[in-house]
Amino acid sequence: MSFRAPVQDITFNIEHLSDWPRLAALPAYSDFELDDVQAVLEEFGRFCSEEIAPLNAPGDHVGSTYANGKVTTPDGFAAAYGKCVEMGWPGLPHPAEHGGQGMPRVVGAAATEILNAANMSFALCQLLTDGAVEALLTAGSEAQKATYLEKLITGQWTGTMNLTEPQAGSDLAMLRSRAEPAGDGSYKISGTKIFITYGEHDMAENTVHLVLARLPDAPRGVKGISLFLVPKFMVGADGSIGDRNAVRCVSIEHKLGITASPTAVLEFEGATGFLIGQEHAGLEYMFTMMNAARFAVGVQGIAISERAYQQALAYAGDRVQSRPVDGSSRDAVPIINHPDVRRLLMRMKALTEGTRAMACVAAAWQDLGHHNSDAASAALSEFLTPLVKGYSTEMGVEVASCGVQVHGGMGFIEETGAAQHYRDARILPIYEGTTAIQANDLVGRKTLRDGGETAMRLAGMIAETQTALAAGSVEAQAVARRLGQARADFEAVVAHLLATAKDNPNAAYGAGVPYLMLAGNLVSGWQLGRALLAAEQARTQGGDPAFLASKIATARFYADHILVDTASQRTRILEGGDALLAAAF
Amino acid sequence: MSFRAPVQDITFNIEHLSDWPRLAALPAYSDFELDDVQAVLEEFGRFCSEEIAPLNAPGDHVGSTYANGKVTTPDGFAAAYGKCVEMGWPGLPHPAEHGGQGMPRVVGAAATEILNAANMSFALCQLLTDGAVEALLTAGSEAQKATYLEKLITGQWTGTMNLTEPQAGSDLAMLRSRAEPAGDGSYKISGTKIFITYGEHDMAENTVHLVLARLPDAPRGVKGISLFLVPKFMVGADGSIGDRNAVRCVSIEHKLGITASPTAVLEFEGATGFLIGQEHAGLEYMFTMMNAARFAVGVQGIAISERAYQQALAYAGDRVQSRPVDGSSRDAVPIINHPDVRRLLMRMKALTEGTRAMACVAAAWQDLGHHNSDAASAALSEFLTPLVKGYSTEMGVEVASCGVQVHGGMGFIEETGAAQHYRDARILPIYEGTTAIQANDLVGRKTLRDGGETAMRLAGMIAETQTALAAGSVEAQAVARRLGQARADFEAVVAHLLATAKDNPNAAYGAGVPYLMLAGNLVSGWQLGRALLAAEQARTQGGDPAFLASKIATARFYADHILVDTASQRTRILEGGDALLAAAF
Repeated sequence: MSFRAPVQDITFNIEHLSDWPRLAALPAYSDFELDDVQAVLEEFGRFCSEEIAPLNAPGDHVGSTYANGKVTTPDGFAAAYGKCVEMGWPGLPHPAEHGGQGMPRVVGAAATEILNAANMSFALCQLLTDGAVEALLTAGSEAQKATYLEKLITGQWTGTMNLTEPQAGSDLAMLRSRAEPAGDGSYKISGTKIFITYGEHDMAENTVHLVLARLPDAPRGVKGISLFLVPKFMVGADGSIGDRNAVRCVSIEHKLGITASPTAVLEFEGATGFLIGQEHAGLEYMFTMMNAARFAVGVQGIAISERAYQQALAYAGDRVQSRPVDGSSRDAVPIINHPDVRRLLMRMKALTEGTRAMACVAAAWQDLGHHNSDAASAALSEFLTPLVKGYSTEMGVEVASCGVQVHGGMGFIEETGAAQHYRDARILPIYEGTTAIQANDLVGRKTLRDGGETAMRLAGMIAETQTALAAGSVEAQAVARRLGQARADFEAVVAHLLATAKDNPNAAYGAGVPYLMLAGNLVSGWQLGRALLAAEQARTQGGDPAFLASKIATARFYADHILVDTASQRTRILEGGDALLAAAF
Repeated sequence: MSFRAPVQDITFNIEHLSDWPRLAALPAYSDFELDDVQAVLEEFGRFCSEEIAPLNAPGDHVGSTYANGKVTTPDGFAAAYGKCVEMGWPGLPHPAEHGGQGMPRVVGAAATEILNAANMSFALCQLLTDGAVEALLTAGSEAQKATYLEKLITGQWTGTMNLTEPQAGSDLAMLRSRAEPAGDGSYKISGTKIFITYGEHDMAENTVHLVLARLPDAPRGVKGISLFLVPKFMVGADGSIGDRNAVRCVSIEHKLGITASPTAVLEFEGATGFLIGQEHAGLEYMFTMMNAARFAVGVQGIAISERAYQQALAYAGDRVQSRPVDGSSRDAVPIINHPDVRRLLMRMKALTEGTRAMACVAAAWQDLGHHNSDAASAALSEFLTPLVKGYSTEMGVEVASCGVQVHGGMGFIEETGAAQHYRDARILPIYEGTTAIQANDLVGRKTLRDGGETAMRLAGMIAETQTALAAGSVEAQAVARRLGQARADFEAVVAHLLATAKDNPNAAYGAGVPYLMLAGNLVSGWQLGRALLAAEQARTQGGDPAFLASKIATARFYADHILVDTASQRTRILEGGDALLAAAF
């Protein structure tokens, strides 16, 4: 079925949830009007629907293939990528001074969602390039920026992140790849890197590998890791493409999903590399890049949810089966009329829109923190990064699974396409840090380190929305009640972690994923609560009535069917520590 | 990795949860001692580990293949099936007077679990044959039994169930296949059937298709469906194999999982068929068969959970990554030491053992209802059928997904094997009636029809266990508290459905799946509570201390981490009706 970019919902969020006037007032964004943003996203959405989405299922069927060190992407990928570059899409969120369009992050996040919903395997190439751009902007020398940045920002060249080794996945301390000074300022990089997304492909003329490796005198552990830039083809002073560097792809993985995206094993055999930033500071730079990448992976979760939802909704409207349980028809009806199909579809819709709203706000706070040196916004955006990554991706898996269920037996047949989303989604809670890694980040760096200050600031903001909702319509009041209960659950959990983590770190970190799920659930529900208020307001001002009614119904559904889970999560966290510590296999 | 049948847990359940003395006192089972049962299951477990489990991953990689009307199963399948038949395994649960071994259903369920855990694609053939046996035992004529039953029970021939047509999935009223009297007492069957598991294959010399079709004078809807027996090859009076019947396989499906099991499209082109039982009574017979099949599919959910758990547990013990959060080691440790990996593994274990315990009790009640004409047991077993099917399969999907997560990036690589379970599991909440269909059954036929009597009897039994737990150890008391809360949630939901379903069927049936999940959760937790009491008792009598300690820890974990979900489910059901009815897409 055809994919349609959810531009109406996205621009609604930017307009009503992202604190747009403050964003637009930033000097960096003074050129952008909301209407322009909407026009850009609509054009990009059209391009993705027409050119990228149709390649998704065929690409999955054949996958990328490997032979003799070369990777061939599925038919149409390279041409579509070329068209993307030609139209200037890759530069959308990147700084204008390096050839990008310098759009606000809320717009960049929207574009990432749309591209990934159209075709996640295809979009991954861009996602990794974005990470490389981020790293070079953070730590690249002026010469490195001059040579590589514009080519990456325009998409003419693509980027990769080389962290994982067979023995070093989540644990980068165990990383072994080596970098030896070559005497001319460059380094010889050696080692094996695995799980390298688009580590080798045929869509662009050059690839810029960012590689973590150890210098000969490096301290042990994560403090001895440096970041290197290793081009696939050497680059001349004039930017021309030169000789092949000593890095080769020895195989690609046979994966559950995102099969069209090549996941390479790369062998670095004394490849020429260039140090990025300071020696032994690689992990720090990589974290900058990873934070952007984690956010982007969270957005992939939203994207796969949107795609799965659209497909299930279309099927449920077409498939005629069984009479209604309320006896309202003597004939079989489209299954969208059956209560449990409605429940599944509303669950999919509410989770998609809830996580999208959360990501929009997180992106806005990133911008305010970055461009405005607003420490509170920065702290809030950092608090939200593990939620966007962890919650949106876990929910992406669930939404994709619901999508299969709506299709019944047809969902299990690969030709239908619902199963692809279920397979594709499954990588999202794993790569760029598993949900448990996100939860460790949330518990340790984002909650305990500031003594719960950011968490409590968030709770305070939620309380304000709750107050506004409580003074509103019947629907608003219903959402206010749930939001109040969920906020109380969140506060109790934060207090519990602050009180117990030091003496009982195993129980605290064992509660990390439930805490992350509770917090992600709460923040998404909160944003839908804000959306409800905005929709009620917009309704009085002549907005699209069907769209606004659906926003209100979705917020209500989220509150009564999804926010309610925080009660059980709270009990699990507050009272489940002993049972976890007593685990016996 | 190698698979080991969980015979210790299974026999523990049979001994302590199934009311074994009452079962063993049934005349039908007077020959069986518990020691014999254990010996049989151990031998079967060994056979499955050695001969069947090793075919699972290779079978998945190649799948069954189709050419010119014939299906070729993966290498080794036909030989292994032949060995199964030779050793007499297929007859284990079937009546001795027709060539089976007449073992109690709790043993049959255990064998089904073990075979499916070893290789779900392989085991499906047997599962369908079991269904055909059930139907013939219920409604077959003496002549039909004489001709077909022993061959099916020994496994020499296999069986299929032909319900689904392209336009008739969950809705059998829309079924169009026709049966014309041939004048000689037989019928000519015509129509297209889809999703026919093992509808065509190369593992046995004949296949007995059971087919739903309409006679020329049939009433509309489900009251006009009759059941026919259509052999692949005609059978002579002496049982010899004759001509090919006019039924052919036109294709097999390309599926997300269980790829080794052929899912056929069958074309019946005036095939010779024989009426089973009365005209127009086909659906009733099919329901007998379906109830057995639904229970068996629930057991498949347990099986896939067990297999996924074993694989994740082994990986977590091997994979070394990161230092402990509690600072107890300066070196990286096996990931099984990290709190969230422990949480995931305990969740997998608790759900596996909880659903297994529920299925064991359901099987025992089936036997007591069947052989003892014990109406209360029969009603309880019928109440549990949708829970075993719905809850165990939904949890099977979740457990398989957790198994992928424990593996991190390696879980997404097909060679690891964790992904296969995630793919295979996904069919389970769909076939033999989706979870929503099970929920309709639970709400309508199992709860509302008797005015909640069976539901309340169950709640009363749970209260007794709760009382016993409350008088016990610290662990027992902790479980008693949770069980009490979950039971109260269940009772509140049942009361709510009884009070509101008539006036508001859409809300009631829309709450069906949450109700089913709540009830399945409660019953599984209840049975683990009983297991805890039995384990504490057995510990004083010299039982295996590690096993018994693990049973106790698992019951505690289930209570504090899984039973707690009933609180949120209750709120969703009692207070979520309006939000569901207001759904707007």
